[in-house]
Amino acid sequence: MTEQDKPLRADARRNKARVLEAAEVVLARDGVTASMRAVAQEAGVGLGTIYRHFPTREALHEAILVGRMERLVEDLPALIEAADAGAAFFGFFTDIVTNASRMKAVADALADAGVDVKAGMSEVGAAVRNAVETLLVRAQWAGAVRADLGMPELLALLGAVCLAAERNQWGAELRDRTLEVVFDGCRPRP
Amino acid sequence: MTEQDKPLRADARRNKARVLEAAEVVLARDGVTASMRAVAQEAGVGLGTIYRHFPTREALHEAILVGRMERLVEDLPALIEAADAGAAFFGFFTDIVTNASRMKAVADALADAGVDVKAGMSEVGAAVRNAVETLLVRAQWAGAVRADLGMPELLALLGAVCLAAERNQWGAELRDRTLEVVFDGCRPRP
Repeated sequence: MTEQDKPLRADARRNKARVLEAAEVVLARDGVTASMRAVAQEAGVGLGTIYRHFPTREALHEAILVGRMERLVEDLPALIEAADAGAAFFGFFTDIVTNASRMKAVADALADAGVDVKAGMSEVGAAVRNAVETLLVRAQWAGAVRADLGMPELLALLGAVCLAAERNQWGAELRDRTLEVVFDGCRPRP
Repeated sequence: MTEQDKPLRADARRNKARVLEAAEVVLARDGVTASMRAVAQEAGVGLGTIYRHFPTREALHEAILVGRMERLVEDLPALIEAADAGAAFFGFFTDIVTNASRMKAVADALADAGVDVKAGMSEVGAAVRNAVETLLVRAQWAGAVRADLGMPELLALLGAVCLAAERNQWGAELRDRTLEVVFDGCRPRP
Protein backbone atom coordinates (compact mmCIF):
# COMPACT_ATOMS: atom_id res chain seq x y z
CA MET A 1 0.00 0.00 0.00
CA THR A 2 1.57 3.32 -1.04
CA GLU A 3 1.18 6.58 0.81
CA GLN A 4 -1.49 7.69 -1.65
CA ASP A 5 -3.66 4.61 -1.20
CA LYS A 6 -3.92 4.85 2.60
CA PRO A 7 -7.27 6.01 3.96
CA LEU A 8 -6.83 9.66 4.87
CA ARG A 9 -7.84 11.31 8.14
CA ALA A 10 -10.41 14.08 7.80
CA ASP A 11 -7.88 16.91 8.03
CA ALA A 12 -5.56 15.21 5.53
CA ARG A 13 -8.52 14.81 3.16
CA ARG A 14 -9.35 18.49 3.50
CA ASN A 15 -5.70 19.38 2.84
CA LYS A 16 -5.63 17.23 -0.26
CA ALA A 17 -8.82 18.84 -1.61
CA ARG A 18 -7.38 22.27 -0.83
CA VAL A 19 -4.18 21.43 -2.74
CA LEU A 20 -6.18 20.27 -5.77
CA GLU A 21 -8.28 23.41 -5.72
CA ALA A 22 -5.16 25.58 -5.46
CA ALA A 23 -3.50 23.62 -8.27
CA GLU A 24 -6.47 24.36 -10.55
CA VAL A 25 -6.12 28.08 -9.85
CA VAL A 26 -2.35 28.07 -10.38
CA LEU A 27 -2.58 26.00 -13.58
CA ALA A 28 -5.19 28.34 -15.03
CA ARG A 29 -2.90 31.26 -14.20
CA ASP A 30 0.60 29.91 -14.95
CA GLY A 31 -0.05 26.99 -17.30
CA VAL A 32 1.06 23.38 -16.88
CA THR A 33 4.65 24.32 -16.11
CA ALA A 34 3.51 25.89 -12.82
CA SER A 35 5.80 24.90 -9.92
CA MET A 36 4.78 22.81 -6.91
CA ARG A 37 6.01 25.72 -4.77
CA ALA A 38 3.45 28.06 -6.40
CA VAL A 39 0.70 25.52 -5.65
CA ALA A 40 1.81 25.27 -2.00
CA GLN A 41 1.76 29.06 -1.72
CA GLU A 42 -1.74 29.31 -3.21
CA ALA A 43 -3.03 26.52 -0.94
CA GLY A 44 -1.41 28.03 2.12
CA VAL A 45 0.29 24.75 3.06
CA GLY A 46 3.92 23.65 3.21
CA LEU A 47 5.71 22.07 0.27
CA GLY A 48 5.91 18.88 2.35
CA THR A 49 2.10 18.60 2.43
CA ILE A 50 1.98 18.84 -1.36
CA TYR A 51 4.57 16.10 -1.82
CA ARG A 52 2.89 13.87 0.79
CA HIS A 53 -0.27 13.73 -1.35
CA PHE A 54 1.34 14.12 -4.78
CA PRO A 55 4.90 12.75 -4.94
CA THR A 56 5.42 14.17 -8.46
CA ARG A 57 3.99 16.93 -10.59
CA GLU A 58 2.61 14.20 -12.87
CA ALA A 59 0.66 12.69 -9.94
CA LEU A 60 -0.84 16.12 -9.28
CA HIS A 61 -1.72 16.62 -12.95
CA GLU A 62 -3.34 13.20 -13.12
CA ALA A 63 -5.44 13.92 -10.02
CA ILE A 64 -6.62 17.19 -11.56
CA LEU A 65 -7.57 15.56 -14.83
CA VAL A 66 -9.41 12.69 -13.14
CA GLY A 67 -11.11 15.18 -10.81
CA ARG A 68 -12.40 17.27 -13.70
CA MET A 69 -13.69 14.25 -15.56
CA GLU A 70 -15.33 12.94 -12.37
CA ARG A 71 -17.10 16.25 -11.88
CA LEU A 72 -18.40 16.11 -15.46
CA VAL A 73 -19.65 12.56 -14.80
CA GLU A 74 -21.07 13.42 -11.35
CA ASP A 75 -23.41 15.96 -12.90
CA LEU A 76 -24.69 13.47 -15.44
CA PRO A 77 -27.45 11.65 -13.48
CA ALA A 78 -29.11 14.99 -12.66
CA LEU A 79 -28.72 16.18 -16.25
CA ILE A 80 -30.23 13.01 -17.65
CA GLU A 81 -33.28 13.47 -15.41
CA ALA A 82 -33.54 17.21 -16.07
CA ALA A 83 -37.02 18.51 -16.88
CA ASP A 84 -35.71 20.61 -19.79
CA ALA A 85 -34.00 18.00 -21.97
CA GLY A 86 -32.95 20.59 -24.56
CA ALA A 87 -31.23 22.81 -21.99
CA ALA A 88 -29.51 19.75 -20.51
CA PHE A 89 -28.19 18.70 -23.93
CA PHE A 90 -26.89 22.11 -24.98
CA GLY A 91 -25.59 22.84 -21.47
CA PHE A 92 -23.50 19.67 -21.37
CA PHE A 93 -22.12 20.36 -24.87
CA THR A 94 -21.08 23.85 -23.68
CA ASP A 95 -19.49 22.44 -20.49
CA ILE A 96 -17.35 20.00 -22.42
CA VAL A 97 -16.13 22.69 -24.83
CA THR A 98 -15.41 25.11 -21.99
CA ASN A 99 -13.38 22.49 -20.14
CA ALA A 100 -11.68 21.07 -23.22
CA SER A 101 -8.76 23.44 -23.54
CA ARG A 102 -7.83 23.25 -19.87
CA MET A 103 -8.13 19.46 -19.83
CA LYS A 104 -6.15 19.17 -23.07
CA ALA A 105 -3.20 21.14 -21.68
CA VAL A 106 -3.00 18.91 -18.61
CA ALA A 107 -3.43 15.73 -20.66
CA ASP A 108 -0.65 16.83 -23.05
CA ALA A 109 1.72 17.57 -20.18
CA LEU A 110 1.09 14.07 -18.82
CA ALA A 111 1.59 12.50 -22.23
CA ASP A 112 4.87 14.42 -22.60
CA ALA A 113 5.94 12.99 -19.25
CA GLY A 114 5.21 9.51 -20.56
CA VAL A 115 2.08 8.95 -18.43
CA ASP A 116 -0.55 6.97 -20.33
CA VAL A 117 -3.67 8.98 -19.53
CA LYS A 118 -5.79 7.14 -22.05
CA ALA A 119 -5.81 4.00 -19.93
CA GLY A 120 -7.21 5.83 -16.91
CA MET A 121 -9.64 7.84 -19.00
CA SER A 122 -11.31 5.16 -21.08
CA GLU A 123 -13.82 4.23 -18.35
CA VAL A 124 -14.81 7.85 -17.75
CA GLY A 125 -14.81 8.43 -21.52
CA ALA A 126 -17.32 5.62 -22.03
CA ALA A 127 -19.56 7.07 -19.30
CA VAL A 128 -19.50 10.48 -21.00
CA ARG A 129 -20.23 8.95 -24.40
CA ASN A 130 -23.22 7.04 -23.03
CA ALA A 131 -24.48 10.17 -21.31
CA VAL A 132 -24.17 12.20 -24.52
CA GLU A 133 -26.25 9.58 -26.32
CA THR A 134 -28.94 9.61 -23.61
CA LEU A 135 -29.01 13.42 -23.57
CA LEU A 136 -29.32 13.42 -27.36
CA VAL A 137 -32.22 10.95 -27.46
CA ARG A 138 -34.09 12.77 -24.68
CA ALA A 139 -33.59 16.15 -26.37
CA GLN A 140 -34.85 14.68 -29.65
CA TRP A 141 -37.96 13.26 -27.97
CA ALA A 142 -38.59 16.66 -26.42
CA GLY A 143 -38.37 18.23 -29.90
CA ALA A 144 -35.39 20.39 -28.92
CA VAL A 145 -32.93 18.67 -31.26
CA ARG A 146 -33.53 17.59 -34.87
CA ALA A 147 -34.54 13.95 -35.17
CA ASP A 148 -32.01 13.19 -37.93
CA LEU A 149 -28.93 14.16 -35.88
CA GLY A 150 -26.88 10.99 -35.31
CA MET A 151 -24.12 10.26 -32.81
CA PRO A 152 -21.31 10.20 -35.45
CA GLU A 153 -21.92 13.77 -36.61
CA LEU A 154 -22.68 14.95 -33.06
CA LEU A 155 -19.32 13.61 -31.83
CA ALA A 156 -17.64 15.02 -34.96
CA LEU A 157 -19.06 18.48 -34.19
CA LEU A 158 -18.17 18.26 -30.49
CA GLY A 159 -14.63 17.13 -31.35
CA ALA A 160 -14.20 19.84 -33.99
CA VAL A 161 -15.26 22.65 -31.67
CA CYS A 162 -13.15 21.34 -28.75
CA LEU A 163 -10.10 20.97 -30.99
CA ALA A 164 -10.36 24.47 -32.46
CA ALA A 165 -11.24 26.14 -29.14
CA GLU A 166 -8.10 24.66 -27.62
CA ARG A 167 -5.76 25.10 -30.58
CA ASN A 168 -6.81 28.66 -31.42
CA GLN A 169 -7.40 29.80 -27.85
CA TRP A 170 -10.97 30.99 -28.39
CA GLY A 171 -12.18 33.59 -25.95
CA ALA A 172 -15.56 33.17 -24.23
CA GLU A 173 -17.36 35.48 -26.66
CA LEU A 174 -16.12 33.73 -29.81
CA ARG A 175 -16.93 30.36 -28.23
CA ASP A 176 -20.49 31.40 -27.40
CA ARG A 177 -21.15 32.93 -30.84
CA THR A 178 -19.76 29.86 -32.59
CA LEU A 179 -21.74 27.46 -30.39
CA GLU A 180 -24.91 29.46 -31.09
CA VAL A 181 -24.54 28.68 -34.82
CA VAL A 182 -23.78 24.99 -34.17
CA PHE A 183 -26.72 24.69 -31.75
CA ASP A 184 -29.13 26.32 -34.19
CA GLY A 185 -27.96 23.73 -36.71
CA CYS A 186 -28.82 20.98 -34.20
CA ARG A 187 -32.35 22.33 -33.65
CA PRO A 188 -35.27 21.18 -35.79
CA ARG A 189 -36.22 23.60 -38.58
CA PRO A 190 -39.54 25.16 -37.51
CA MET B 1 18.08 32.99 -63.36
CA THR B 2 17.65 29.42 -62.12
CA GLU B 3 16.47 26.50 -64.23
CA GLN B 4 12.98 26.83 -62.72
CA ASP B 5 12.58 30.50 -63.58
CA LYS B 6 13.40 30.17 -67.31
CA PRO B 7 10.45 30.52 -69.67
CA LEU B 8 9.48 26.98 -70.67
CA ARG B 9 8.91 25.75 -74.20
CA ALA B 10 5.42 24.43 -74.85
CA ASP B 11 6.38 20.75 -74.54
CA ALA B 12 8.34 21.41 -71.34
CA ARG B 13 5.31 23.24 -69.90
CA ARG B 14 3.12 20.29 -70.78
CA ASN B 15 5.61 17.93 -69.14
CA LYS B 16 5.69 20.02 -65.98
CA ALA B 17 1.90 20.08 -65.79
CA ARG B 18 1.82 16.32 -66.34
CA VAL B 19 4.33 15.77 -63.52
CA LEU B 20 2.25 17.91 -61.13
CA GLU B 21 -0.90 16.02 -62.06
CA ALA B 22 0.86 12.68 -61.55
CA ALA B 23 2.29 13.87 -58.23
CA GLU B 24 -1.26 14.68 -56.99
CA VAL B 25 -2.37 11.15 -57.85
CA VAL B 26 0.68 9.52 -56.22
CA LEU B 27 0.43 11.68 -53.09
CA ALA B 28 -3.25 10.83 -52.67
CA ARG B 29 -2.35 7.14 -53.00
CA ASP B 30 0.99 6.87 -51.14
CA GLY B 31 1.01 9.92 -48.86
CA VAL B 32 3.66 12.62 -48.64
CA THR B 33 6.53 10.14 -48.40
CA ALA B 34 5.85 9.03 -52.01
CA SER B 35 9.10 8.73 -54.01
CA MET B 36 10.06 10.85 -57.01
CA ARG B 37 10.44 7.58 -58.91
CA ALA B 38 6.77 6.72 -58.31
CA VAL B 39 5.80 10.16 -59.63
CA ALA B 40 7.93 9.65 -62.77
CA GLN B 41 6.31 6.26 -63.35
CA GLU B 42 2.79 7.67 -62.97
CA ALA B 43 3.59 10.60 -65.29
CA GLY B 44 5.24 8.34 -67.88
CA VAL B 45 8.39 10.47 -67.99
CA GLY B 46 12.00 9.85 -67.00
CA LEU B 47 13.32 10.65 -63.54
CA GLY B 48 15.52 13.30 -65.22
CA THR B 49 12.44 15.21 -66.38
CA ILE B 50 11.10 15.30 -62.84
CA TYR B 51 14.36 16.64 -61.41
CA ARG B 52 14.68 19.20 -64.20
CA HIS B 53 11.43 20.85 -63.08
CA PHE B 54 11.60 20.01 -59.37
CA PRO B 55 15.17 19.67 -58.09
CA THR B 56 13.95 18.40 -54.69
CA ARG B 57 10.87 16.69 -53.28
CA GLU B 58 10.23 19.89 -51.32
CA ALA B 59 10.11 21.93 -54.55
CA LEU B 60 7.54 19.48 -55.89
CA HIS B 61 5.47 19.65 -52.69
CA GLU B 62 5.55 23.43 -52.74
CA ALA B 63 4.38 23.52 -56.37
CA ILE B 64 1.49 21.20 -55.49
CA LEU B 65 0.42 23.31 -52.53
CA VAL B 66 0.63 26.58 -54.46
CA GLY B 67 -1.21 24.95 -57.37
CA ARG B 68 -4.09 23.84 -55.15
CA MET B 69 -4.41 27.24 -53.53
CA GLU B 70 -4.26 28.93 -56.95
CA ARG B 71 -7.07 26.72 -58.21
CA LEU B 72 -9.18 27.68 -55.17
CA VAL B 73 -8.46 31.35 -55.89
CA GLU B 74 -9.02 30.99 -59.68
CA ASP B 75 -12.59 29.89 -59.08
CA LEU B 76 -13.30 32.86 -56.84
CA PRO B 77 -14.23 35.58 -59.38
CA ALA B 78 -16.88 33.31 -60.91
CA LEU B 79 -18.15 32.32 -57.44
CA ILE B 80 -18.40 35.92 -56.32
CA GLU B 81 -20.52 36.75 -59.40
CA ALA B 82 -22.62 33.59 -59.12
CA ALA B 83 -26.38 34.05 -59.47
CA ASP B 84 -27.08 31.80 -56.45
CA ALA B 85 -25.09 33.51 -53.69
CA GLY B 86 -26.15 30.90 -51.09
CA ALA B 87 -24.95 27.97 -53.20
CA ALA B 88 -21.66 29.82 -53.88
CA PHE B 89 -21.10 30.41 -50.15
CA PHE B 90 -21.86 26.86 -49.02
CA GLY B 91 -20.06 25.37 -52.04
CA PHE B 92 -16.84 27.24 -51.28
CA PHE B 93 -17.02 26.25 -47.59
CA THR B 94 -17.36 22.59 -48.67
CA ASP B 95 -14.45 22.89 -51.14
CA ILE B 96 -12.12 24.25 -48.49
CA VAL B 97 -13.01 21.47 -46.02
CA THR B 98 -12.65 18.79 -48.70
CA ASN B 99 -9.19 20.09 -49.69
CA ALA B 100 -8.04 20.80 -46.15
CA SER B 101 -6.71 17.40 -45.15
CA ARG B 102 -4.76 16.90 -48.38
CA MET B 103 -3.30 20.40 -48.23
CA LYS B 104 -2.46 19.99 -44.55
CA ALA B 105 -0.40 16.82 -45.13
CA VAL B 106 1.68 18.53 -47.83
CA ALA B 107 2.12 21.70 -45.76
CA ASP B 108 3.24 19.62 -42.75
CA ALA B 109 5.79 17.73 -44.86
CA LEU B 110 7.22 21.04 -46.06
CA ALA B 111 7.31 22.46 -42.55
CA ASP B 112 9.13 19.29 -41.38
CA ALA B 113 11.67 19.88 -44.14
CA GLY B 114 12.21 23.40 -42.85
CA VAL B 115 10.45 25.15 -45.75
CA ASP B 116 8.55 28.22 -44.57
CA VAL B 117 5.26 27.75 -46.41
CA LYS B 118 3.52 30.51 -44.50
CA ALA B 119 5.54 33.18 -46.31
CA GLY B 120 4.44 31.96 -49.74
CA MET B 121 0.88 31.37 -48.60
CA SER B 122 0.06 34.67 -46.93
CA GLU B 123 -0.83 36.42 -50.19
CA VAL B 124 -3.12 33.59 -51.33
CA GLY B 125 -4.49 33.34 -47.78
CA ALA B 126 -5.48 37.01 -47.82
CA ALA B 127 -7.21 36.53 -51.19
CA VAL B 128 -9.19 33.59 -49.79
CA ARG B 129 -10.14 35.53 -46.66
CA ASN B 130 -11.38 38.48 -48.72
CA ALA B 131 -13.35 36.13 -50.95
CA VAL B 132 -14.96 34.41 -47.94
CA GLU B 133 -16.05 37.80 -46.65
CA THR B 134 -17.53 38.81 -50.03
CA LEU B 135 -19.30 35.44 -50.37
CA LEU B 136 -20.68 35.85 -46.84
CA VAL B 137 -22.04 39.37 -47.42
CA ARG B 138 -23.61 38.40 -50.76
CA ALA B 139 -25.22 35.28 -49.24
CA GLN B 140 -26.58 37.42 -46.38
CA TRP B 141 -28.06 39.96 -48.81
CA ALA B 142 -29.66 37.09 -50.71
CA GLY B 143 -31.20 35.87 -47.44
CA ALA B 144 -29.40 32.50 -47.65
CA VAL B 145 -27.23 33.11 -44.56
CA ARG B 146 -28.33 34.60 -41.24
CA ALA B 147 -27.63 38.32 -40.99
CA ASP B 148 -25.96 38.04 -37.56
CA LEU B 149 -23.20 35.65 -38.66
CA GLY B 150 -19.88 37.50 -38.35
CA MET B 151 -16.48 36.72 -39.89
CA PRO B 152 -14.87 35.69 -36.55
CA GLU B 153 -17.35 32.87 -35.87
CA LEU B 154 -17.47 31.91 -39.57
CA LEU B 155 -13.67 31.50 -39.65
CA ALA B 156 -13.83 29.70 -36.27
CA LEU B 157 -16.35 27.21 -37.68
CA LEU B 158 -14.42 26.75 -40.91
CA GLY B 159 -11.19 26.21 -38.97
CA ALA B 160 -12.82 23.79 -36.54
CA VAL B 161 -14.30 21.60 -39.27
CA CYS B 162 -11.06 21.61 -41.32
CA LEU B 163 -8.98 20.73 -38.27
CA ALA B 164 -11.22 17.84 -37.19
CA ALA B 165 -11.73 16.51 -40.73
CA GLU B 166 -7.97 16.30 -41.15
CA ARG B 167 -7.09 15.06 -37.67
CA ASN B 168 -9.81 12.43 -37.44
CA GLN B 169 -9.76 11.43 -41.11
CA TRP B 170 -13.47 12.03 -41.72
CA GLY B 171 -14.96 10.08 -44.60
CA ALA B 172 -17.10 11.87 -47.20
CA GLU B 173 -20.38 10.81 -45.59
CA LEU B 174 -19.48 12.02 -42.10
CA ARG B 175 -18.15 15.26 -43.59
CA ASP B 176 -21.38 15.89 -45.51
CA ARG B 177 -23.65 15.09 -42.56
CA THR B 178 -21.62 17.30 -40.24
CA LEU B 179 -21.54 20.18 -42.74
CA GLU B 180 -25.31 19.89 -43.16
CA VAL B 181 -25.75 20.68 -39.44
CA VAL B 182 -23.26 23.56 -39.56
CA PHE B 183 -24.87 24.99 -42.72
CA ASP B 184 -28.37 24.81 -41.22
CA GLY B 185 -26.95 26.75 -38.28
CA CYS B 186 -25.70 29.41 -40.73
CA ARG B 187 -29.11 29.77 -42.39
CA PRO B 188 -31.67 32.27 -41.14
CA ARG B 189 -34.41 30.76 -38.93
CA PRO B 190 -37.59 30.82 -41.04
